[in-house]
Amino acid sequence: MASEEVSNKQVLLRDYVTGFPKESDMDVKTSSIKLKVPDGSKAVLVKNLYLSCDPYMRGRMNRPIIASYIGSFQPGSPIAGYGVSKVLDSGHPDFKKGDLVWGITGWEEYSLITATESLFKIHNTDVPLSYYTGILGMPGMTAYAGFYEICSPKKGEYVFVSAASGAVGQLVGQFAKLLGCYVVGSAGSKDKVDLLKNKFGFDEAFNYKEESDLGAALKRYFPEGIDIYFENVGGKMLDAVLQNLRVHGRIAVCGMISQYNLERPEGVHSLSALFLKQARMEGFLVPSFYHKYSNYLELVLPYIKEGKVTYVEDIAEGLESGPAALVGLFTGRNVGKQVVVVARE
Amino acid sequence: MASEEVSNKQVLLRDYVTGFPKESDMDVKTSSIKLKVPDGSKAVLVKNLYLSCDPYMRGRMNRPIIASYIGSFQPGSPIAGYGVSKVLDSGHPDFKKGDLVWGITGWEEYSLITATESLFKIHNTDVPLSYYTGILGMPGMTAYAGFYEICSPKKGEYVFVSAASGAVGQLVGQFAKLLGCYVVGSAGSKDKVDLLKNKFGFDEAFNYKEESDLGAALKRYFPEGIDIYFENVGGKMLDAVLQNLRVHGRIAVCGMISQYNLERPEGVHSLSALFLKQARMEGFLVPSFYHKYSNYLELVLPYIKEGKVTYVEDIAEGLESGPAALVGLFTGRNVGKQVVVVARE
Repeated sequence: MASEEVSNKQVLLRDYVTGFPKESDMDVKTSSIKLKVPDGSKAVLVKNLYLSCDPYMRGRMNRPIIASYIGSFQPGSPIAGYGVSKVLDSGHPDFKKGDLVWGITGWEEYSLITATESLFKIHNTDVPLSYYTGILGMPGMTAYAGFYEICSPKKGEYVFVSAASGAVGQLVGQFAKLLGCYVVGSAGSKDKVDLLKNKFGFDEAFNYKEESDLGAALKRYFPEGIDIYFENVGGKMLDAVLQNLRVHGRIAVCGMISQYNLERPEGVHSLSALFLKQARMEGFLVPSFYHKYSNYLELVLPYIKEGKVTYVEDIAEGLESGPAALVGLFTGRNVGKQVVVVARE
Repeated sequence: MASEEVSNKQVLLRDYVTGFPKESDMDVKTSSIKLKVPDGSKAVLVKNLYLSCDPYMRGRMNRPIIASYIGSFQPGSPIAGYGVSKVLDSGHPDFKKGDLVWGITGWEEYSLITATESLFKIHNTDVPLSYYTGILGMPGMTAYAGFYEICSPKKGEYVFVSAASGAVGQLVGQFAKLLGCYVVGSAGSKDKVDLLKNKFGFDEAFNYKEESDLGAALKRYFPEGIDIYFENVGGKMLDAVLQNLRVHGRIAVCGMISQYNLERPEGVHSLSALFLKQARMEGFLVPSFYHKYSNYLELVLPYIKEGKVTYVEDIAEGLESGPAALVGLFTGRNVGKQVVVVARE
């Protein structure tokens, strides 16, 4: 039996994180693993191919005392996140050797996954497999649920997206354009702004770092106000949007990345806009919408194949590059969806 | 014609207000008025009986540049608000002499109302007429729309109401109890807290002025969290509620009276609760729900007659007492719905 063990490179959390996460908050170490599911277990043993870097992971680096919707990582253990994996062995009737799956896995070469209920089987392989960490995975479902379900968008409405070139934002903007909305995005560099306008087809885009008055910037792009805001950043940008909200405006609160590393989140001052404008602000977590995943695939796979939706990924090579890639999300280093390639099949 | 003129006492806005409003921001002066509608006009000429003091009126005292959903009062002119009035003369086919109406009227003894579309005819007079400034008028409809329509309440849910002994709050609490919810209210004095527990049947109540940590206070009354928050105050209380929200919590934003007199509203820091708890925060303005007024009367009139709902008013006698009564809202001087009696029929 000992001969079946192979080496297993892992990204471990060193200790709970306060403030901005650093590469040194994680260690890359090599352990070993048997490539077989224990007898009688309903787990699956997978080889990890692509790992997804997502802002929500920051919350799992906090000490457990800080409220989050999902447990903290364990210092000394591999961190975990969404990924695309290949089943090497299975004790579960729904999965067999050779299956491709996406869902929560460990940041390591091989993982024994016991929480198999979080895994989706991949049936469509005529698209890049890495897409299942992005447009065809959790971020895609996030854009779909947040935009279509939470925002109730209508043709012709004025839509603003922050963190607009990111894994979710780039999709929200394109979905809104396909519906016939006017769409403006904000991002943190000239390159990203170019991407928004020239690749994703946003009507307008701006670099928030170059605006001293975000409220005035939004007023410039939305002289008649904002119907829909897809909220990814929080803080000052949210305040600026509230000041520019249209009657019956809707804000889908997907996340607030600008706030995750602050000791205390910034104060938002313009909430009276909610009653003055009869507006709605609604938060959501994408797992609550996973029962609609097949509907989403029916919508988005044709869009991809017909070239109506495009998806930009930022690929980091090798598990060793994982900590830098993950940490880079919080300084906006990534351009598009940040993926870590562990192995290509 | 000149002989038909009578004297008309009025409450005039002296000048736009910044900060807390003071009695001296208003003048009581006597003008004169003809008790006849001008020939060919579709206006109505009314004798005002009861005037309503409502927090939203503070917004109309601002310089017009400050965003509000309704225009500013005119310095030198009478202020306006909801009231109960008797029609003395009418050029409008829907109203005739002797009709009782409620709606927007002037703070004066007699008013010529041209915006007759805002008037409701009063058909049920076997209740106190002043109730049409409260439980049977705008505040009643506010409680009804905000609680039933915005909060989608269910039996057994945990409900928190701020400014709970006020014109709207006392009704929200009683409606929630009738539905079988657990209801806690906050108010600003021992007398009000007693009223909440002993007269309105709230399960619990507390004096927010005696709590150094509002989040801890709410944790005490809602160990399992808050399903529904009826928001009347804003600021620190909203932050404390967000910290104690339950999954799929709902916040109906009716108003934020604690913020209206601040140069800059307080910052709210805990908005990440919206996505962490998949919660919804929705603002509303009651005129958007006036088409449901007859449904509301069908619900609430039997409640009143059967003694299932009670309503506490704070009656100020005479138009001269109007400025003090209105200003008193913002220091919490009123106990229950603040009404000004101009005349009793």
